[in-house]
Amino acid sequence: MENVTILGAGSWGTALAIVLAENGHNTLLWTHRIEQANEINEQHTNEKYLPNIQLPTKLTATADLQEAVNHSNIIVVAVPTKAIREVCHSMMTFLNDKKLFVHVSKGIEPDTLKRISEMLKENLSPDVIEEIVVLSGPSHAEEVVLHHPTTITAACGNLEMAEKVQDLFMNQYFRVYTNEDVVGVEIGGALKNVIALAAGVSDGLNYGDNAKAALITRGLAEITRLGVKMGGNPFTFAGLTGMGDLIATCTSVHSRNWRAGNMLGKGMKLDEVLDNIGMVVEGVRTTKAAYQLSQEYDVPMPLTTALYDVLFNDKEPKEAVDELMIRMKKREIDIL
Amino acid sequence: MENVTILGAGSWGTALAIVLAENGHNTLLWTHRIEQANEINEQHTNEKYLPNIQLPTKLTATADLQEAVNHSNIIVVAVPTKAIREVCHSMMTFLNDKKLFVHVSKGIEPDTLKRISEMLKENLSPDVIEEIVVLSGPSHAEEVVLHHPTTITAACGNLEMAEKVQDLFMNQYFRVYTNEDVVGVEIGGALKNVIALAAGVSDGLNYGDNAKAALITRGLAEITRLGVKMGGNPFTFAGLTGMGDLIATCTSVHSRNWRAGNMLGKGMKLDEVLDNIGMVVEGVRTTKAAYQLSQEYDVPMPLTTALYDVLFNDKEPKEAVDELMIRMKKREIDIL
Repeated sequence: MENVTILGAGSWGTALAIVLAENGHNTLLWTHRIEQANEINEQHTNEKYLPNIQLPTKLTATADLQEAVNHSNIIVVAVPTKAIREVCHSMMTFLNDKKLFVHVSKGIEPDTLKRISEMLKENLSPDVIEEIVVLSGPSHAEEVVLHHPTTITAACGNLEMAEKVQDLFMNQYFRVYTNEDVVGVEIGGALKNVIALAAGVSDGLNYGDNAKAALITRGLAEITRLGVKMGGNPFTFAGLTGMGDLIATCTSVHSRNWRAGNMLGKGMKLDEVLDNIGMVVEGVRTTKAAYQLSQEYDVPMPLTTALYDVLFNDKEPKEAVDELMIRMKKREIDIL
Repeated sequence: MENVTILGAGSWGTALAIVLAENGHNTLLWTHRIEQANEINEQHTNEKYLPNIQLPTKLTATADLQEAVNHSNIIVVAVPTKAIREVCHSMMTFLNDKKLFVHVSKGIEPDTLKRISEMLKENLSPDVIEEIVVLSGPSHAEEVVLHHPTTITAACGNLEMAEKVQDLFMNQYFRVYTNEDVVGVEIGGALKNVIALAAGVSDGLNYGDNAKAALITRGLAEITRLGVKMGGNPFTFAGLTGMGDLIATCTSVHSRNWRAGNMLGKGMKLDEVLDNIGMVVEGVRTTKAAYQLSQEYDVPMPLTTALYDVLFNDKEPKEAVDELMIRMKKREIDIL
C-alpha cells in the first residue's frame, strides 16, 4: 500500500481519491477550502461535487498544501487548468525532493498554448519531478463512484512510470491501460471539449442525431490532424482518450461542456451560459487555445474556427453550424 | 429532372423517396403490399413506417415490380438484406437493359459472407448492371423527413457514377459526399449494427456512459482491423459511414439494434426480443456473419465474439461484457 496525495477536491479529484482509498492506499485529499476538508473528515461526504455519496473512512482531507505534499511521493494534480500554475508555485516554496506527478486535467492554456504536462514542467523545477504521467479517458466521476465499469489510459514516455500509476488505480471496475504517447493523450483529452461544445450547440438548435454524428466525426478528424502534426500517434486519437472520451462527453448529460453548448444553441449569450452553469467550462478556454494552435501549426480546423467565432465574435450559432454542414466539398476524404 | 425508382417502402426507402421527390425527380416507390401502395397514392402517408408525415404528391407508389423497374434507369434498392436475392430474381425475369443500381441496405449475408453489392452482382446478370453505388452514413429516417441536416456518402469504384448519385440526392439539408471505397463503406455500415447491439446490452445492464464509450471505441477498432484486411481504406472507418454511423446508431433511441441489445441486457431471451420488436433486427444476422468473417480472415474480434456467444450460445450478457471490460491486456495499443 502506498501513501497518495490528490490536489483538488472537485468531482473528479474526489472520485479518484475514492478509487485509491478503496484500493487500500492511504489517500489524502487537498482542498483550499477548510470547510470542505472538515466536511470530508467529519461527515465523510463532499455533497457539492458528489451528492449522496459516502466516502471511505480511509480517505482524509486537509486544507494545508504542505501537509498534503509531505504525505506522499505521488501527487495527483486534479485542480482546474486555470489554477495549475498557482498551485505549482505554492508547492515550490517547500518541495525539496522528487515526486511522481500524475495529472488528470484536460485543457490547453490559451496564448502560451502549453499542454498541462508542459505547464507542470515550467512551474516545478526539474529536481522535484521524478516523472509526469497523464491519466485520461472516458470517465464521468458520477459513474466511477457507482462502480460502473470504466476504462482509462495512463500515459508517460517512461512506460515503467505509467505502469506504476496503472498498478495504483487498477481494480475490478476501474481498468487502466498504458500508452507512451503523452502528446496524443493530452491533445485528445483537451480538444474533445471543443467538439462537445459544438455538439451541444447542434443539439440546442434541435438538429438531431444525424447532424451531431457528422459533427463529432469531423471534429475527431480535425483533432487528429492537429495532434499528429504536434507529434502525437494517430492511433491514440482512435483510442480511449480520443474517440472514447469524445463519445462519452458528447453524448452525456453529465458534460458541462455539452450543456454549455446546448444553451448557446438555444440562443443564450456566453456570459449568461457561464453564469448559469456556475462551474468551470474548460471547453471555452480550450476553444480559444485550439483556434490559436490551428493557426500556429497551420492545420485547417473548420469546426473549431466556427465555434471560436460563435464564442468570441458574436457569430450566430445557426449560421456557424449551417456553414459547417453545407460546405461544398464533394469528396469525403476532403472533409476528413 | 430524372425518373427514379425506389424498391422497398420501409422508413428508409420512403425517406429517400421523399428527398428525391422534393428535389423534383419523378419518384416511384415499389412495395409488395398493394394496400401500402394505395395508402401512399391516395392518403399521401405511410403511417406504419413514417407516422405523421405527409408525403409529396410527386411521390407515387406501385405494387407492380415490373412497372416500377420500367419507370426509370436508376433503381434504388431499399429492401431488407434478407429479401434482396428474391427481388433480384424477380427483376431478372423482365430486365433487359442496363440500370444504375443504388443500394442503401446495411448487412452481410451469413454463411456466404457476401456484401450487398456482391449479392446484387450474383443475382443480376452483368448486362443489366450499369454500375452499383452504395449510399450509407449516419441518417435516421425520422430526422431526414423533418429536414434535419444529414450527411451521407455515395461510394463507387467509378467516381463518376458516385457523383451522379450525389447530384440526384444532394440538397440543402441532405449533404452527399463521394468515396471510392465500396468495401470500407459496406463493411462499416453493416458491422456498426453489431456494436450497436453490444452498446445496447451494456446500457441494459446499466453500465453507464463510460463503459459504452469504451465498447464503441474497441468495436470500431475491431471493425477497422477486419475491413482493412478485406481491402477497405482505414480512413473510411474514421469517416461518416464508419465512426459517424456508429455514433448515430449507438447513441440514439431510434436504433432497433440498440433497443434489441438493451432488452437482452435486461435479461430477455433473443426470441422474446425479436417478437417484441416485430421488425427486422439486421444486427442479429450481421453478428453471425461478422463472427464468421473474423474466422475466415483470421482477425481477432473480441466484442463480436462475445456478442455472438450471447446471441447463439446462451452466454449471460453480464458475463460477456465483464470479460470484455476486464481482459488483462496492459497496453492500450493491444486492445485497439
